[in-house]
Amino acid sequence: MEFMFLGTSSGVPTRHRNVSGLAIGIAGAKAWYLVDCGEGTQHRLLQTHRSLVKLAGIFITHVHGDHCFGLPGLLASAAMAGRSEPLPIIAPEPIRAFIEIAQKTTDTYIPYDIIFTPVEEPETAWRGTDMLVKTTALSHRVPSYAYTFTERYVPRNLNTQKLKERGVPAGPLWGRLQKGQDVTLDNGTEHCSDEYLLPQRSPRSIVIGGDNDTPELLSAECAGADVLVHEATYTEAVAAVVGSKHRHSSAAQVAGFAQRVGLRNLVLTHFSARYQIDAPGSASVNELEHEARAYYDGNLFLADDLAGYELDKGGNLQLKQPGLGSGRKR
Amino acid sequence: MEFMFLGTSSGVPTRHRNVSGLAIGIAGAKAWYLVDCGEGTQHRLLQTHRSLVKLAGIFITHVHGDHCFGLPGLLASAAMAGRSEPLPIIAPEPIRAFIEIAQKTTDTYIPYDIIFTPVEEPETAWRGTDMLVKTTALSHRVPSYAYTFTERYVPRNLNTQKLKERGVPAGPLWGRLQKGQDVTLDNGTEHCSDEYLLPQRSPRSIVIGGDNDTPELLSAECAGADVLVHEATYTEAVAAVVGSKHRHSSAAQVAGFAQRVGLRNLVLTHFSARYQIDAPGSASVNELEHEARAYYDGNLFLADDLAGYELDKGGNLQLKQPGLGSGRKR
Repeated sequence: MEFMFLGTSSGVPTRHRNVSGLAIGIAGAKAWYLVDCGEGTQHRLLQTHRSLVKLAGIFITHVHGDHCFGLPGLLASAAMAGRSEPLPIIAPEPIRAFIEIAQKTTDTYIPYDIIFTPVEEPETAWRGTDMLVKTTALSHRVPSYAYTFTERYVPRNLNTQKLKERGVPAGPLWGRLQKGQDVTLDNGTEHCSDEYLLPQRSPRSIVIGGDNDTPELLSAECAGADVLVHEATYTEAVAAVVGSKHRHSSAAQVAGFAQRVGLRNLVLTHFSARYQIDAPGSASVNELEHEARAYYDGNLFLADDLAGYELDKGGNLQLKQPGLGSGRKR
Repeated sequence: MEFMFLGTSSGVPTRHRNVSGLAIGIAGAKAWYLVDCGEGTQHRLLQTHRSLVKLAGIFITHVHGDHCFGLPGLLASAAMAGRSEPLPIIAPEPIRAFIEIAQKTTDTYIPYDIIFTPVEEPETAWRGTDMLVKTTALSHRVPSYAYTFTERYVPRNLNTQKLKERGVPAGPLWGRLQKGQDVTLDNGTEHCSDEYLLPQRSPRSIVIGGDNDTPELLSAECAGADVLVHEATYTEAVAAVVGSKHRHSSAAQVAGFAQRVGLRNLVLTHFSARYQIDAPGSASVNELEHEARAYYDGNLFLADDLAGYELDKGGNLQLKQPGLGSGRKR
């Protein structure tokens, strides 16, 4: 699985960070999913290989503008790019009216169907072609949600050593065995698929949180997940100054939570605009990293616009493509 | 007077051009005006010295998304930047509903007043502190308008040679004479302000057009104007292929019009996304320039994102700050 940040700033864009947006999908697949769509998300996408025609679903965590003001433009540009496939949108109910009014008042023609599912609806899970997406309610000034992306199909690998030992020749027969079919060799021996299929690994799972002041609400989700992407808007010291009315998490809070639930990979994002890249005298995300490391000894990353990550089949998360702030004073 | 392009692309953003937006004001003044506000306008502004707190008015030419989808985010960011002054918005009536619903559905708090004036209302002219703004109806798929910005105050210069000849000493007395006050020197001689004030020059005037397939609608406006900024979405050849249903102007059409009305300065903008900067094999805005020059022998510019222009008191328009495409293959 892979994901890329399209924006990592909280509330307002800065010169080097856009507001929230994240592209996620199965590595190598053309279909992909978008979590949040702040203003300028479509602009960031122009710097990636992601196509609006292949976008398989949009998930909005909550109604705040820095997470959804890019929707009208992105939907219009998808139309102009020739999209005809229906587009699922999973979002808080008010987003439906926002999209509809935006289209109506601006005379925007959308030639494809938008399949809107209110995130408030009690549902088991949303099923994409290659992903299962589960919703968890969080705690913020407005209703906010996390989306857990889990891969749907985990092929079982063949025990090739056993196949060789028992004289099953490599080729189409191996393919049939992997598909669960039993085969008979020319010499008359019968070979049962189950004997050669290795145990299925766990499907990989990535939790993408919306704005949230109570990471513990994700305890159950994170117990079975490989990665948590969560806001860490500021440090404890800043949180103490701005107060709790904004209902965000500090780096210490999220890191402490990740440590307690034994999470292997943690990516912090949604940084206050006070953390500027390449701005002399401004606060630095190094402060957030420093604070988080004091509470968490797992695999920690601080998100950056256009930074791409890959989660391998063994559950290891790696930075695959450095982001825009790479090499700059952060 | 000065203006800067925040976006010069038609319909969709490209890697180097954003959708429509233009900042205009009196050179050196902090107050400024915004014409159109496509998605990402606030992002472009972060690369300029313009402050959302000092924004003195927003003018929207028509309802299409590439001219207004940046409004909700820009208004929210102005609030977060601490704006408290009322903000005038002059726009087609449907924009009012778009802004209101965007704020309501996304729980956006705007602490300053928005003074909305529907552009459809018959009005003489809108008066800013330092600008008079007149509206002219254009021809497009939806109602579209041009805004003519004219400076309100043109100070009369002093005839300094005459002052020296008549022995009026430089200093505060000159200031009083320029303000229209008569003065008496220590030697008893009386000096009348009118004797020393030079004739007032004409106020400078810049016409900013919205999308429009009939430049002739601006004949009266352009007769008294120094600059026309107008869309030239494609060449005649491309226009012939895409047909007239989009109701845009070609470079030849606008250039021919400018020549006929004797316009001194013409800036073309709103280029189709087929004209890419730094994209091998794509069409080039040089084609638009080439076509326009065949019809117009005045002072011609092709707009570029973040290109800044200054119109001096003599009516000469100059590129003051090269844009993002400068030095690239355009």
